[in-house]
Amino acid sequence: MQSDHASRNSTVSSNPCGDQTVDEVLPGIWRWRTGSPERISPVRVRQSLPLTASLVNLPGCNFPFDSTLLSARGSDRSWTLTLPHSRDEGIFGFGLQLKSHLQSGKKRSLRVNADPVLDQGDSHAPVPFYVSTRGYAVLVDTARYASVYVGTHASVSHIRERVYEKGNEIKFSVDDLYQSTAIGDRVVADIPAAQGADVYIFGGPDALTALRRYVLFSGGGCFPPLWSLGNWYRPFTNHSSEDVLQLIDQFQADGMPFEVIGLEPGWQSRFYPNSFTWSSRFPDPSGFANTLHEKGMFLNLWENAFIHPDSPMADSIAPHCASELSTDGLVPDFLEPEAVGIFADYHARELVDQGVDGFKLDECDNGDFLPFAWSFPEFSEFPSGADGEQMHVLYGTLYQRVIDRVFASRNRRHYGLVRSSGALASPLPFALYSDLYDAADFRRGLVNAGTSGLLWSPEVRHATSVEDLVRRVQLTVLSPLSLINAWYIPRPPWWQIDTEMNKIGIPMDDQENIKILVRKALTLRMQLIPYLYSAFASYATEGTPPFRAMFLECPGDPTAWKCDDQFMIGDSLLAAPMIAGESDRSVFLPPGIWYNFASGQRLQGGQCIHLSNVSLETIPLFVRDGSLIPLRADCDQGIASGLPMKITVRAYGPGPARGRLFLDDGISYAYLDPTGGRDIILTCGTDDTLHVDSAKCSTLYHLPDFVNRISDGSTL
Amino acid sequence: MQSDHASRNSTVSSNPCGDQTVDEVLPGIWRWRTGSPERISPVRVRQSLPLTASLVNLPGCNFPFDSTLLSARGSDRSWTLTLPHSRDEGIFGFGLQLKSHLQSGKKRSLRVNADPVLDQGDSHAPVPFYVSTRGYAVLVDTARYASVYVGTHASVSHIRERVYEKGNEIKFSVDDLYQSTAIGDRVVADIPAAQGADVYIFGGPDALTALRRYVLFSGGGCFPPLWSLGNWYRPFTNHSSEDVLQLIDQFQADGMPFEVIGLEPGWQSRFYPNSFTWSSRFPDPSGFANTLHEKGMFLNLWENAFIHPDSPMADSIAPHCASELSTDGLVPDFLEPEAVGIFADYHARELVDQGVDGFKLDECDNGDFLPFAWSFPEFSEFPSGADGEQMHVLYGTLYQRVIDRVFASRNRRHYGLVRSSGALASPLPFALYSDLYDAADFRRGLVNAGTSGLLWSPEVRHATSVEDLVRRVQLTVLSPLSLINAWYIPRPPWWQIDTEMNKIGIPMDDQENIKILVRKALTLRMQLIPYLYSAFASYATEGTPPFRAMFLECPGDPTAWKCDDQFMIGDSLLAAPMIAGESDRSVFLPPGIWYNFASGQRLQGGQCIHLSNVSLETIPLFVRDGSLIPLRADCDQGIASGLPMKITVRAYGPGPARGRLFLDDGISYAYLDPTGGRDIILTCGTDDTLHVDSAKCSTLYHLPDFVNRISDGSTL
Repeated sequence: MQSDHASRNSTVSSNPCGDQTVDEVLPGIWRWRTGSPERISPVRVRQSLPLTASLVNLPGCNFPFDSTLLSARGSDRSWTLTLPHSRDEGIFGFGLQLKSHLQSGKKRSLRVNADPVLDQGDSHAPVPFYVSTRGYAVLVDTARYASVYVGTHASVSHIRERVYEKGNEIKFSVDDLYQSTAIGDRVVADIPAAQGADVYIFGGPDALTALRRYVLFSGGGCFPPLWSLGNWYRPFTNHSSEDVLQLIDQFQADGMPFEVIGLEPGWQSRFYPNSFTWSSRFPDPSGFANTLHEKGMFLNLWENAFIHPDSPMADSIAPHCASELSTDGLVPDFLEPEAVGIFADYHARELVDQGVDGFKLDECDNGDFLPFAWSFPEFSEFPSGADGEQMHVLYGTLYQRVIDRVFASRNRRHYGLVRSSGALASPLPFALYSDLYDAADFRRGLVNAGTSGLLWSPEVRHATSVEDLVRRVQLTVLSPLSLINAWYIPRPPWWQIDTEMNKIGIPMDDQENIKILVRKALTLRMQLIPYLYSAFASYATEGTPPFRAMFLECPGDPTAWKCDDQFMIGDSLLAAPMIAGESDRSVFLPPGIWYNFASGQRLQGGQCIHLSNVSLETIPLFVRDGSLIPLRADCDQGIASGLPMKITVRAYGPGPARGRLFLDDGISYAYLDPTGGRDIILTCGTDDTLHVDSAKCSTLYHLPDFVNRISDGSTL
Repeated sequence: MQSDHASRNSTVSSNPCGDQTVDEVLPGIWRWRTGSPERISPVRVRQSLPLTASLVNLPGCNFPFDSTLLSARGSDRSWTLTLPHSRDEGIFGFGLQLKSHLQSGKKRSLRVNADPVLDQGDSHAPVPFYVSTRGYAVLVDTARYASVYVGTHASVSHIRERVYEKGNEIKFSVDDLYQSTAIGDRVVADIPAAQGADVYIFGGPDALTALRRYVLFSGGGCFPPLWSLGNWYRPFTNHSSEDVLQLIDQFQADGMPFEVIGLEPGWQSRFYPNSFTWSSRFPDPSGFANTLHEKGMFLNLWENAFIHPDSPMADSIAPHCASELSTDGLVPDFLEPEAVGIFADYHARELVDQGVDGFKLDECDNGDFLPFAWSFPEFSEFPSGADGEQMHVLYGTLYQRVIDRVFASRNRRHYGLVRSSGALASPLPFALYSDLYDAADFRRGLVNAGTSGLLWSPEVRHATSVEDLVRRVQLTVLSPLSLINAWYIPRPPWWQIDTEMNKIGIPMDDQENIKILVRKALTLRMQLIPYLYSAFASYATEGTPPFRAMFLECPGDPTAWKCDDQFMIGDSLLAAPMIAGESDRSVFLPPGIWYNFASGQRLQGGQCIHLSNVSLETIPLFVRDGSLIPLRADCDQGIASGLPMKITVRAYGPGPARGRLFLDDGISYAYLDPTGGRDIILTCGTDDTLHVDSAKCSTLYHLPDFVNRISDGSTL
């Protein structure tokens, strides 16, 4: 609980207006306490503690703005917080926002909702958190459906200062309106029902450092096990264990590198609570899991948290559930230790100990965008005292926490999928997904989610064309969780994208060529695993999101603010994936020299470059000058069976270069111990000799003596 | 104020649970008072009083369900009301719901929002009111964004009774989900921020009577002036007074029957408060209005309520405005008598007394469905003590009330357009409109709005094809307000539907034929005016909505519940208009014999009939057996200049027939006086002689001696 942290020295004087105070609670993190905060909020129910040891290593900072500009007031309907905002800053964040990236000038309605179709703020994972290009971040600690007005309004006292353009021409565009309305001088957070709230303000001095403070305050980033960074496949929903094993043999025969199989165990009723007992399609679950493991595959299971009355858990957990049903099932109150205990113990004994390596947590959001109400209503009452609104805000995060506890109790790291998340969720190893499927939105999610300490998986499901299939695969392999979700077809989509043809067994004409393109993308993912693993280690211990937006790289450049179709991966890579229908695109390169990852073409940064006639096999990926990129060399082997993995190291640019690798056992929480995990620093001079600052690489990596130099004009 | 009505004898015992009571406050109308209701609510700020004299004429009824099933509870976030619901009833209402008609099984989020694109309950005119096919209606008296869960959920105690279908097949359709979730036994209204609320329960014994009780409780239906039931045209936004007069001459030369011209006076700035002073395109507004009147035309002006700082009203009204701006203008607090007085007096002196006959009230809703926030925010504070949420719920209705007060002060009836409305709005003579433009939605609005005492105008704007143009005109002429809104093109759409071609002056090839089709529809409207006028009189004095859904006709027949594309007009007409893309459709005819309005074809009711290959000139319209339909004969003359209008009367079916006409002066409020207005009953026997129960028809109508018999097999 945040309230356990002693208040540190206050670097700004406590605000004199009414019952509010501003105190520095951790280095560079201030708590603005207003009114009487509610008992249930993300910070107040947190379990992960801030990574104080990492926070103290960040650069120092001052309180980021004039604290006298903060004000709060209450009314019958809400608690209203006002923070400063200026026209020359860009505001980002508010959780996963598939429909927009730059949030300045917008009202964000932070309701938990599956499948947002409009740019209102509703999201699978809304977070009352934002990052400013002026080098600070703000978390409003609420479990309510807050609305945040980001510079949208000016108060009536400013009416004479407003810019009016009177005229006969009344036609106007959305851009005109936006231009006109984004001149407010305030951010207003309006919290229904509350009579107070804490606000946490994270100092910089720059936007990325402010975001890192938030992630470290949340408990650091998650650290998925090494194997989980491979490619995932979810086969046909009706497959039996035999079908799945045959499919895996086929992948291995075809050289399709997959590491994880995701299944629906058939434990849901039609609509649609779970029994949590395997269907007869899987007569021997633990034997099946063993066989998968022997084949170098890991097993992830679909579920939702709603419990069918026939479940073995039902009777014991019923007293600790909501007053209302969801998807016709019992809703466990994950703020109640008894509910958590029963749910976690069942998962540990009956599933994880039987060989399950992770879970996909469905339906933990809400569904206002369908005309019927499938989830528990906001008026639900929970034994913990939470109401349905608060529980919707928290449910995705709490659900992740229960599953995380199961694996922590076994000292096994895991990685999963989840359909809802929220504030302080960065330590939880889950990637968000959505049933929405717009390719540009899916790419925008990769840009956007990291700004709130979230991960996003643009899973591949159906494809409307071969181009769509290949581009979507290229997108997912450059994401936190690389997944092909073929639940609706018995054969892989590269064999046949048409659902009906796939079902009756008629392949596409050009399936061999398509397979080559898909394999190339999946193999790129496998190559990148050592680099990605190190980027996740940096997330876990230093708070730097492994996938993040360009404004964090260049907060002073409004061109970078608008980039909603490219993103950084780790410290050195810049990805600008294509989607179907695009053959050209522009890419913003931050200042400095960059190289094309594949061709080595040298590019001058500090500008937008234009890519023309991008072939279907090309994945635009760029590397910062002076980077050493460790790549897996033996991509035809599974990770588990191929350790220590053979590494090649590329040096980009003609001069000395530097990179890193994270070393631990790849699967346990031992990395949290100072002796259990560490960064290896890779360097090379102009002689191309690879220098490694540690000899202890043998468990995970087999390193070469020389780097592969990729420099101006060279090709691979 | 409803609180002024003395509580009448309670026919049910006061509910013993906690601080709630159920009292009969008017005949067949019960108030269920729970907790401490908020000070600001539709009933508590009402000004129109219930039409008690009409209420006492309704059939008697009992309290419609077991009052012990009512319960209420409060929490930090909301006040939650539970009412009974059974699986065999259909629930309708909740204001204008363009996206759906039958509301059973749905969660309705009753937020005021322009342009709802999803079926969530958001609406230009959400009303916390519903009508049950079991013969009662319910009004939750709140000015909050209430959510109403209509039989969506069952409580956890019912989990063992739920129908589960467990299986391996997880594919499901929306219909499956709906089927599964619509089995709740409750309607739950969840009111944010409140700690109590009054609920009004309207008895039947049937659904239409319950709805009539609600309309009469609201103060009766509105009664537009006779002229306003003609056709309306809004010309090009940049037209000057000269352009408008030329256009009218062209209409008259072409035989296009229009009665009302709607203008944008150019008093808005670009975004977009109003000065309320005419632009230079109209150098002599009152002279212009006089010229229009001389040509038999009436004048309606566009505005929104938000006041530019340069407006003559600005300084005096500023102290009575919200703390925040809307469309960059001052927001008058229409709960403050001073703001109402300044706004109304200005409109009376400067506009109505200069010849303006009515107004179109724009932007009085809210805009959560655009990513920017153009309207005043919910956290606004108003001098009356209302907050922005309450004011959004009430604003459309209050704004109508201010304008209505202006005309009432001059004893002139008026009719207008408005973009938002709410509870108890039936006495206010405004039809809703929307910038959404889906033809099926527009038709559904005609079915739907009347269920909550609202009127809806499916105005014609752009057309994607000639078929689309003609079908939309056919739809609008069968609506409460028949309007072609050509604000975006200088020439009429029947001359050229393509905007660019219209602007540069190139007509469509087949414009003469299209003009014939459009004229035919506009002429049908003119013919129907005496019938429509009588239907509106029945709305005003008896509470029967003139346009209403089929379930009110046949509440016991689920086939009628599903009719969202046909509706009743008055007592005798059933309209089933086509939209573009349809050449076939089915029509549900209530039990009895029906006739095709135009062809006289005899049809057996109590079933769905199928119309095939419906030609573009055909408007499916049906008449109940035994009806006398008064039609205007001299449709080439304007209403104002053509009084008394020449009437023909059609008798449908071979037997005795009956109809009605309402007689008053057509323009003033004199009809409210018993001597100022009355129904004329028209009858005929089999000899086709028309009998009229009054000789006092001469002011409005010139009636024939014989009816025009339309019976089996006959044609016109």
